[in-house]
Amino acid sequence: MSRKLVKKRGKKIGAPPGTLVHVGEQSGEDVRIRVIDYDQESISDQWLPVSAPIAPLTETGSVSWIHADGVHQVGVVEALGSALGLHPLVMEDILNTDQRPKLEPYENYLFVVLKMLEFDEARRETVSQQVSIVIGQHYVLSLQERPNKAFDQVRDRLQAGRRIRFLGTDYLAYALIDAITDHYFSVLEKFGDEVEILEDELIGSPSSEILNRIHHLKREMLLLRKAIWPLREVLSSLSRNDLAFVSDGTRVYLRDVYDHIVHALDTVETLRDLLTGMIDLYLSTASNRMNEVMKVLTIIATLFMPLTFIAGVYGMNFEYMPELSQRWGYPAVLILMLLVVAGLLYYFRRKSWL
Amino acid sequence: MSRKLVKKRGKKIGAPPGTLVHVGEQSGEDVRIRVIDYDQESISDQWLPVSAPIAPLTETGSVSWIHADGVHQVGVVEALGSALGLHPLVMEDILNTDQRPKLEPYENYLFVVLKMLEFDEARRETVSQQVSIVIGQHYVLSLQERPNKAFDQVRDRLQAGRRIRFLGTDYLAYALIDAITDHYFSVLEKFGDEVEILEDELIGSPSSEILNRIHHLKREMLLLRKAIWPLREVLSSLSRNDLAFVSDGTRVYLRDVYDHIVHALDTVETLRDLLTGMIDLYLSTASNRMNEVMKVLTIIATLFMPLTFIAGVYGMNFEYMPELSQRWGYPAVLILMLLVVAGLLYYFRRKSWL
Amino acid sequence: MSRKLVKKRGKKIGAPPGTLVHVGEQSGEDVRIRVIDYDQESISDQWLPVSAPIAPLTETGSVSWIHADGVHQVGVVEALGSALGLHPLVMEDILNTDQRPKLEPYENYLFVVLKMLEFDEARRETVSQQVSIVIGQHYVLSLQERPNKAFDQVRDRLQAGRRIRFLGTDYLAYALIDAITDHYFSVLEKFGDEVEILEDELIGSPSSEILNRIHHLKREMLLLRKAIWPLREVLSSLSRNDLAFVSDGTRVYLRDVYDHIVHALDTVETLRDLLTGMIDLYLSTASNRMNEVMKVLTIIATLFMPLTFIAGVYGMNFEYMPELSQRWGYPAVLILMLLVVAGLLYYFRRKSWL
Amino acid sequence: MSRKLVKKRGKKIGAPPGTLVHVGEQSGEDVRIRVIDYDQESISDQWLPVSAPIAPLTETGSVSWIHADGVHQVGVVEALGSALGLHPLVMEDILNTDQRPKLEPYENYLFVVLKMLEFDEARRETVSQQVSIVIGQHYVLSLQERPNKAFDQVRDRLQAGRRIRFLGTDYLAYALIDAITDHYFSVLEKFGDEVEILEDELIGSPSSEILNRIHHLKREMLLLRKAIWPLREVLSSLSRNDLAFVSDGTRVYLRDVYDHIVHALDTVETLRDLLTGMIDLYLSTASNRMNEVMKVLTIIATLFMPLTFIAGVYGMNFEYMPELSQRWGYPAVLILMLLVVAGLLYYFRRKSWL
Amino acid sequence: MSRKLVKKRGKKIGAPPGTLVHVGEQSGEDVRIRVIDYDQESISDQWLPVSAPIAPLTETGSVSWIHADGVHQVGVVEALGSALGLHPLVMEDILNTDQRPKLEPYENYLFVVLKMLEFDEARRETVSQQVSIVIGQHYVLSLQERPNKAFDQVRDRLQAGRRIRFLGTDYLAYALIDAITDHYFSVLEKFGDEVEILEDELIGSPSSEILNRIHHLKREMLLLRKAIWPLREVLSSLSRNDLAFVSDGTRVYLRDVYDHIVHALDTVETLRDLLTGMIDLYLSTASNRMNEVMKVLTIIATLFMPLTFIAGVYGMNFEYMPELSQRWGYPAVLILMLLVVAGLLYYFRRKSWL
Repeated sequence: MSRKLVKKRGKKIGAPPGTLVHVGEQSGEDVRIRVIDYDQESISDQWLPVSAPIAPLTETGSVSWIHADGVHQVGVVEALGSALGLHPLVMEDILNTDQRPKLEPYENYLFVVLKMLEFDEARRETVSQQVSIVIGQHYVLSLQERPNKAFDQVRDRLQAGRRIRFLGTDYLAYALIDAITDHYFSVLEKFGDEVEILEDELIGSPSSEILNRIHHLKREMLLLRKAIWPLREVLSSLSRNDLAFVSDGTRVYLRDVYDHIVHALDTVETLRDLLTGMIDLYLSTASNRMNEVMKVLTIIATLFMPLTFIAGVYGMNFEYMPELSQRWGYPAVLILMLLVVAGLLYYFRRKSWL
Repeated sequence: MSRKLVKKRGKKIGAPPGTLVHVGEQSGEDVRIRVIDYDQESISDQWLPVSAPIAPLTETGSVSWIHADGVHQVGVVEALGSALGLHPLVMEDILNTDQRPKLEPYENYLFVVLKMLEFDEARRETVSQQVSIVIGQHYVLSLQERPNKAFDQVRDRLQAGRRIRFLGTDYLAYALIDAITDHYFSVLEKFGDEVEILEDELIGSPSSEILNRIHHLKREMLLLRKAIWPLREVLSSLSRNDLAFVSDGTRVYLRDVYDHIVHALDTVETLRDLLTGMIDLYLSTASNRMNEVMKVLTIIATLFMPLTFIAGVYGMNFEYMPELSQRWGYPAVLILMLLVVAGLLYYFRRKSWL
Repeated sequence: MSRKLVKKRGKKIGAPPGTLVHVGEQSGEDVRIRVIDYDQESISDQWLPVSAPIAPLTETGSVSWIHADGVHQVGVVEALGSALGLHPLVMEDILNTDQRPKLEPYENYLFVVLKMLEFDEARRETVSQQVSIVIGQHYVLSLQERPNKAFDQVRDRLQAGRRIRFLGTDYLAYALIDAITDHYFSVLEKFGDEVEILEDELIGSPSSEILNRIHHLKREMLLLRKAIWPLREVLSSLSRNDLAFVSDGTRVYLRDVYDHIVHALDTVETLRDLLTGMIDLYLSTASNRMNEVMKVLTIIATLFMPLTFIAGVYGMNFEYMPELSQRWGYPAVLILMLLVVAGLLYYFRRKSWL
Repeated sequence: MSRKLVKKRGKKIGAPPGTLVHVGEQSGEDVRIRVIDYDQESISDQWLPVSAPIAPLTETGSVSWIHADGVHQVGVVEALGSALGLHPLVMEDILNTDQRPKLEPYENYLFVVLKMLEFDEARRETVSQQVSIVIGQHYVLSLQERPNKAFDQVRDRLQAGRRIRFLGTDYLAYALIDAITDHYFSVLEKFGDEVEILEDELIGSPSSEILNRIHHLKREMLLLRKAIWPLREVLSSLSRNDLAFVSDGTRVYLRDVYDHIVHALDTVETLRDLLTGMIDLYLSTASNRMNEVMKVLTIIATLFMPLTFIAGVYGMNFEYMPELSQRWGYPAVLILMLLVVAGLLYYFRRKSWL
Repeated sequence: MSRKLVKKRGKKIGAPPGTLVHVGEQSGEDVRIRVIDYDQESISDQWLPVSAPIAPLTETGSVSWIHADGVHQVGVVEALGSALGLHPLVMEDILNTDQRPKLEPYENYLFVVLKMLEFDEARRETVSQQVSIVIGQHYVLSLQERPNKAFDQVRDRLQAGRRIRFLGTDYLAYALIDAITDHYFSVLEKFGDEVEILEDELIGSPSSEILNRIHHLKREMLLLRKAIWPLREVLSSLSRNDLAFVSDGTRVYLRDVYDHIVHALDTVETLRDLLTGMIDLYLSTASNRMNEVMKVLTIIATLFMPLTFIAGVYGMNFEYMPELSQRWGYPAVLILMLLVVAGLLYYFRRKSWL
């Protein structure tokens, strides 16, 4: 999750629909486009020159996978969009990286928006970026905010000439979505481990700083849930509805991704419930320790206040205090004090405070 | 959100349905009506004179956008309503500004009620006003409670002769609804920023006044949610059902607005959950600090009460207290006191209170 | 809401279905029956003599509105029921005033149960009574527990010969239901005002008695919700299903009542959430004040216990205490005390307790 | 509710389905079977001898109501089951008294499981027993765990030759179900009364024991809800679906029972919410009282610690303390003390602690 | 539930779908395969040699039950899968033991995943393992993670030649699922007992360690719920949908299992609610005891501070303190002290602190 809870879209508000403005983090790098073209026999892999005009796709029997590793240059997205004949709203959604994951079926293509999650070890939190996928008859267009290695394995499988080469754009899109959702589990593993560490600390000797960590984890779960939840519906539509471009064979695989997402959501919910339970446990333990402290204070005060009072009485300077001049005065007072202490200790024990 | 949780409708209760009574804030200003009439070739923009009778619309090929910037003059609304042939209930709903957002399909038009939200910087809260939109075959009637600049950009686009001029009343209505929902995000941005500021303060050194601010934000979220939630259903019906006056082309755009609204609701829910988590964190931190304070008190009391008692014993005025006349008496007592302190400090450290 | 959470139905339990027993508050008054008979041209309004036999309705073209302002006399209800040919269960439900609001379609009539709410200014709580409405082809039968003025305006409109006279029994029934639901908003206004007053008090200087008032309001909201919630389903069925006796024209009006009820429920929920938030705020404020008090105690105790101890040491009566006989002894001790105080104050400030 | 939260089914686990093992409380009594056979003209009522073989029912025009007042003798249930040709799973469910209420339609009969609730005055809790009802074309079989008087009134009505004699097995089954659900309200009345008593005590002077009683009631509500909730679905199916053996006439009556159950559930939920609100109120009141106590302590300590310190200073035994030998010394110190007290009281009042 | 909240699937992430990698606990044991082949007349039971190639099943009239008591050897699962012609995703799911329970209908078989639960007496927690069941026309394949005795009774019934031998693969699968769900109740019994023990302790004298136990139970309930909840949908589909391989006769039995699962979930929810109520009760009791302690402290401090102060005043060493030289000075001060004590005790009683 990026720091900003709600992304600034200042320039954007009030603009007519289809206005192409980038909403998200800026980057100084050029957006690079990589096109992999393959069929059962051959495969080509090339980076498009940044300045090259993007020619309209010629419809061949092969599958073209066009991938852009950035969406902060509006011109590039616009060029891609018009080359593929995308609806203005689709281009707008690609550029606005504060989208809710969704599936939009258009006449000639399907448009899917998802969140790719990675775990930032340094800050102990998830970093998310938006991935847009357009599935056409003969091409798949994928765009992500920042380059990373998430799709390398898919490229390796394409190169290796495995089954993926024999199947259509729907299977390629599935492979990309699967690669993204697989990472959810690696993020959840990290959080699962942290929850278990916190649980052990909590039963041992919890420091007060543990609360901040639990709260931090709950916050992450909240944002994780927000990112994954809408995917449920997306995959459900992809795997169940009778969409164009999605073959029955691929549907089985998409149903599997759907199951993974539901499982991930279950896990997020379980972790949230565990964290809530941990806060309750921490607070009750803290309140128990408070009770302990108060008891000690009360016992001490209750023991010494009467004694100090007795001593104070015999420290008074009245001329006529008969006890003061008796030989047995001092030992008698000491014994009286002992009796008071014994009586109070007995009282405390009966109240089971000791 | 206006201050009143439930708007007074005193005069209204018990009145027969269709009774035209204004429910809402009163204003001394006259209600002004602006009519923009356009087709692909031409556009006219005029303010109707206040006293002018509103003539029934003549059906031409052009689109008429009739906008009123106030609903507190019953006569004006009544005149508009009868000129357009609106159902009495529609006129009643326009005048009653405490409506729930809704969509009502009538035979000759669609009636939509929404809430327009703006952020009042001074009072740090949202101000809402009701917008009613009637979508007919050849006209769009829009009414708002107080004039503002929310629709200026739509007018600019109409003047500029863009695509919007080529499309029908449904697209115009979409443009208005889109302008309204776009503002939700600017309001949410403000609140998102405030939540992040509060989160940082909370981890730093929270003052007790932070609670009031969190509570204030939660209240705003509650009212925001109440204003946005019903829109979900409205847009869902508009974009999915087979309503008259809504073309397939516009439906795609309305689906996009629907997605924005769901996204806004998600964000409201997330902010609410974060705020709840912050209250919990604040309270547990406060209870931790309380524990700290109590420990200091207990340590101080436990250290000094026995010492003061010992000093009190040797301040007693008994004639026969053998220790008093010994040379080693005073240093011995001082050493005894040191031992007591050392013992107690050891005890506290074992309890890990120090 | 009446005081009893669950009404006594002692006599009733175990009785065969259709047994006519009145469940509810008893009243010494006679039940009076008023029959208004109208069509477009004429209207007659008469009170039936208490002892008169109720004759079966002769089917004329006019609409008969039969209203009883009490249900505590079983005989009257029974007579009405058999004159109109009502099912035994309907009569039973009319007599049992602890019903859940519901709609029961029978072959020859519709049976509707609702709750009429009024605000009892003296006890600051809602008073509810059950209203049963039977909608036939040519008659409407309405019964309420205690007479009040809720339906007077409907009678006025009938007398005034307005549109209501031109429409059938369904529109009359709608007018009655609308009159009842309108009152919900006047009750909600009262509670909305009280919530706002409490909110202001809470930010000012809350007394502990405020909690009881918040609790009281939450209780009222709970009972309000219980009374209104089932109506949602009733109106939804009335306005959407294809019921006999309900014309399309009236359906539009019933849909409007449905919207009002949903709006009222929204408001109840919002008020409940606000009240919950207020309890949280009160408790956290209280806990903050507690913290303040504890800090004052701790500071005082921490300042004076060491000082008192030092004074105690030099109040001991040992013969050989060299400091006592020094000229600088007294001022030195006073300076020592000042240093202790200064050190402690510095410590408190570093802990930011001051 | 019986004490055991989850009934022991030790012997049962791992057994093949249809294995007839009794799960529930054992009883030393013999299970007795009573057969009432009736049609419009005649009625016979007899106890079957315990040892008598149960003969297959001969199909006559009359209705046979076979009732067993215990299910702890497997042989008896087995004999009944095979005489009526019941499915092994039905017999298993009858014997296992830890069933969830349910409706199972079989080809030749309907099988209904419900919970009968009674209020145990001594232990202030509900006692539940399972009732199984099998509705065939010409017979109704009912079995309960322990004999009681719940069905006596149904028998009386049969004897009295009322309408029930003219109707089929479905109406008899309805009469039994109605008798059971009627008792829910008498149980709810008891709890409603207790809740009101507790509410009054809470506003008066609550003892700490009140918490245990609220908790006990919440527990009862929880178990009550668990027993009644599934009945909702059972009655909904019975009254809405097109089941064999249930005539349209009876369906109206079953719909009425359905309404009662929904009403009972509403009441349970309302009572639960009230109890939760009461716990919150109790806790906040307790925390308020705690605040009071702490304030008293703080005021006392803050008043007397400085005074005691001043007295301690002038109790020191330094030889050179000039004030001690002044005539005005003593009165001056007393005045100083008064000033300190006045200053502190002023401070407390400004903090509005007094 | 195994310790790990989220199972490590390190090797797995990013792998192409259908990659066969075992996710779960490793075991050194060989996976053994047992094949039971039966029809109405005969039955054969054999362990397959570990190294034996698994031959494709020849379709005979008999039913083959193939059971593997481990899935940690990928080769074995792969061999089984290709012998039976399973989809790569099915094999992947069998190996990945961190699956959500689910039902996947394929063309030639049904694939079911469930969790088998056992209670680990030593650690007082549930241990879960995944069971995968593939239901074909003539075979049932079942795989579990670790060998145990859960299915022994099914084998006994097969050997005994009971009804199970006359029915198809669907009934065998049902018998396995029934054996698994039966164990849920034995686990719930254990937890139900623990909850009752904790309830009794809580009303007696709760130690602070009870909180950890309640928390532990709540955690178990959470994980139990996560394991059972998805089964609801699985059994609902199995018993209601028109799936191949499932006969009407078996459907009745599956509906029964469905009822058991819903009942188990009800019980889990009830136990969770009870545990939550217990935490609340514990905390309120603890806060009550805290109140008690604070009252004792306040009473003691309030009693002795004024007394000590009075004694301190007359311990001052001023030369001119007229009271000191009076004979009645000492007794008068003692009486004054008594009056102070009496006054304070009266005050405490009026505040009903005593």
